[in-house]
Amino acid sequence: MNFNMIRFLLFRVVQITGLLMILPLIVAFIYGEFFCAEVFAIIIAACLIFGFAGTYKKPTNQAIYAREGFVVTALTWITISLIGALPFQFTGVTKSYVDALFETISGLTTTGSTILSDVEMYYSVQFWRCFTHWIGGMGVLVFILAIMPMAGGYSMHIMRAESPGPSVGKFVPKVRETAKILYSIYFGITILQTVCLLFTGMNAYEALTATFATVGTGGFGINNAGIGGFGYASQVVITIFMIICGINFSVYYYLITKRPKEALNNDEVKLYLVLMFGAASLIAYMIYKQGATATPLESFHHSLFTVASVMTTTGFATLDFNTWPQLARTLLACLMLTGACAGSTGGGFKLSRFLILIRAMKNELTYIVHPKSVKKVYMDGDPVDQSVVKSVSAYLSMYVVIFIISTLLISIDEFDYETNFTAVAATLNNIGPGLSMVGPTGNFGAYSDLSKFVLMFDMLAGRLELLPMLILFSPKNWTKR
Amino acid sequence: MNFNMIRFLLFRVVQITGLLMILPLIVAFIYGEFFCAEVFAIIIAACLIFGFAGTYKKPTNQAIYAREGFVVTALTWITISLIGALPFQFTGVTKSYVDALFETISGLTTTGSTILSDVEMYYSVQFWRCFTHWIGGMGVLVFILAIMPMAGGYSMHIMRAESPGPSVGKFVPKVRETAKILYSIYFGITILQTVCLLFTGMNAYEALTATFATVGTGGFGINNAGIGGFGYASQVVITIFMIICGINFSVYYYLITKRPKEALNNDEVKLYLVLMFGAASLIAYMIYKQGATATPLESFHHSLFTVASVMTTTGFATLDFNTWPQLARTLLACLMLTGACAGSTGGGFKLSRFLILIRAMKNELTYIVHPKSVKKVYMDGDPVDQSVVKSVSAYLSMYVVIFIISTLLISIDEFDYETNFTAVAATLNNIGPGLSMVGPTGNFGAYSDLSKFVLMFDMLAGRLELLPMLILFSPKNWTKR
Repeated sequence: MNFNMIRFLLFRVVQITGLLMILPLIVAFIYGEFFCAEVFAIIIAACLIFGFAGTYKKPTNQAIYAREGFVVTALTWITISLIGALPFQFTGVTKSYVDALFETISGLTTTGSTILSDVEMYYSVQFWRCFTHWIGGMGVLVFILAIMPMAGGYSMHIMRAESPGPSVGKFVPKVRETAKILYSIYFGITILQTVCLLFTGMNAYEALTATFATVGTGGFGINNAGIGGFGYASQVVITIFMIICGINFSVYYYLITKRPKEALNNDEVKLYLVLMFGAASLIAYMIYKQGATATPLESFHHSLFTVASVMTTTGFATLDFNTWPQLARTLLACLMLTGACAGSTGGGFKLSRFLILIRAMKNELTYIVHPKSVKKVYMDGDPVDQSVVKSVSAYLSMYVVIFIISTLLISIDEFDYETNFTAVAATLNNIGPGLSMVGPTGNFGAYSDLSKFVLMFDMLAGRLELLPMLILFSPKNWTKR
Repeated sequence: MNFNMIRFLLFRVVQITGLLMILPLIVAFIYGEFFCAEVFAIIIAACLIFGFAGTYKKPTNQAIYAREGFVVTALTWITISLIGALPFQFTGVTKSYVDALFETISGLTTTGSTILSDVEMYYSVQFWRCFTHWIGGMGVLVFILAIMPMAGGYSMHIMRAESPGPSVGKFVPKVRETAKILYSIYFGITILQTVCLLFTGMNAYEALTATFATVGTGGFGINNAGIGGFGYASQVVITIFMIICGINFSVYYYLITKRPKEALNNDEVKLYLVLMFGAASLIAYMIYKQGATATPLESFHHSLFTVASVMTTTGFATLDFNTWPQLARTLLACLMLTGACAGSTGGGFKLSRFLILIRAMKNELTYIVHPKSVKKVYMDGDPVDQSVVKSVSAYLSMYVVIFIISTLLISIDEFDYETNFTAVAATLNNIGPGLSMVGPTGNFGAYSDLSKFVLMFDMLAGRLELLPMLILFSPKNWTKR
């Protein structure tokens, strides 16, 4: 384990966290929140001093292998969370540092679960809260890769460890270039949505914070009424951009690099769109029949908004879908679990994993009946390597194991099954609200600190696709073989 | 597909179902239930006539391959259920034939879920209801194999298709001998438990029906009060025999064939016993602290009874564990899902599958960090073939897919999440009662016929380890390649 290099990278992260806080500092000045400005300024100063001190001496050995990649990824997210929680705590928005940490991790992992019953607070702190979604959306380390040169080809191990989904492998040869292009796309989408929202009548602050929460597929809002408080036009814009951000970013990458054939030949995106519009149509039919809305178009509007919010694990809501028919609600719960595309900013189990497992399952059924026919699993027309199928299967096992252990641990708090079960599901899938006590109208504040730590672990594990957190907590994997 | 041979085997099943009904016929005479006796007699006569007619001409080609094995297994269970439901319907115990079918499938698959709010009915019908647990416990076809000679080595395909868990492969060379030994063990345990229960003060009828429900790990009782109505001594006997019947029967096979080394070298059984007594001790501590029982020993008694009932998916209860601490309840829910040992009469996901997945997961974690170290999964000291790991992984995927689709389908009935979710879990794992509306004090009667059919499919799929039911419903797998 190259501890020297890990130290160096982590102090670089401290430094960058400080730089990122300049934005809420500006917001604090604009809105005349001088107390908050002071808080942000002190944190920024401390970050920059420690950051510069810790990265002054560059390590001579910059080698980063897979194990360092995973460990540094996990530690980076923990570091940025520990610092990012300070503004909540110092401004008195949260009752305890554990709560502040929960809120920050929920933001960075684009989960959107909250321990706050009242989200209307200082403008600058609220801005920071939504901004964490944006920071976490594309991954902290990919950002660092994009702006920081690194010796050798070692950065690929980091990119692999952090990037959502198994599909980034293709880009590996030119990691830095890719990171730059991905971040340019992310920037471009952010600006485009902000401009669109300004046209729908939002002010700059509302547009920016709503955009952060949308493109990061996070779900933190700036008022207790949620997105329902904004007009139809804004909701339509948000729907469109949620759908856009749930698509594998490689599609945009291919479109920009003028390879439309590769962009369109994507089984996962096809399934994503079919499920999205199929479920939205079905649910629209059901809620129109139920009488929840006046016109079929309105039903479709709310239905598509909800399905997009759920599939991309954003967590926004225009209507309280708990009053919808049980079939619609169960369908939404299923879509929460499958989640969005790999390589998007959305969370969940990821559709590509689901596709690979379903296809492997079909092959297994055929194999049992016809033992001589050995078929491969295909994705986008190409055969998938057996090791990928194996790792996706192992992923499902890890997911189930983490789910069971988390549910057991938080059940010490004596809440009911539905609360505990959906609390774990909502955090591990980076969805946001669960049901019952942690439902859209409740919050996670009632849990004990132990449970909050378990759920924080789940949010980080879910966001980082399980592996970095599991490897961080199994030190025997750190050593060389 | 050898349809002729399938026809022959199914009519043989009809015939044997008729013969099995002689037992409840005798009970009807003993208790003077002449109306019931008439019903049973007519069904028996019809079964024997149709059975003899249908098996009169033996097929010249007796070849049974894997695909026939799976299809015939699924059809056998469906056939025996269709006939077994008739006594419930003709005696007016159930309101509709669908209800009767649900009750029979629940009995045969040793699930123990019921649509009846009152189980105190005719002695003979109740006897038949409990007897279905015993019939289903060891598998209908293994029984047929034991008593019926079959040309060639084809019977192994049937045994493989029906036997619970992946471990039966070892016995394959001498299928009929093995089937005979397994059934002898099963008979032996049945007689032993009946005798023990007689000593605890039960009458013959009570002892027999309780034994059927225990050794089949089913859970149907003969009075509405359940097992709590019997004395402590009876409960202790039932606890011991539940634990015995959740152990892989190959252990007893090895003990009888004097191979103690092979009997003791079983990772799954070790895990089973550790989990059983570990969970029982933990829960005993919790409920004693809670004040649910007067003495620590009493706590342990109820705790071990409940854990054994849950892990073996029997579904008996002495105390209402819904009042226990949430951690205890969540622990019990987890043990329901993992289930008992493969090759036992218990249901659930099976501990051996769980072990294989956990070990494959650990290897995958090591592999990701150290790509050059390729390790195998070991069970009982021997390396497990990669194809077994693959098929266990596929099993988990199938399990999840069936779970999701079933929950979606039954949610049309507008019941709450907890009811629907636990109804599917309880049937797919052959547990019995779920929570909320289908909890220990409720029943499955309120569901629509569509939902009942979905849950019947789940019970059969769970009992037959998914494959036969999936292959039956994918006719394109029937044809030759």
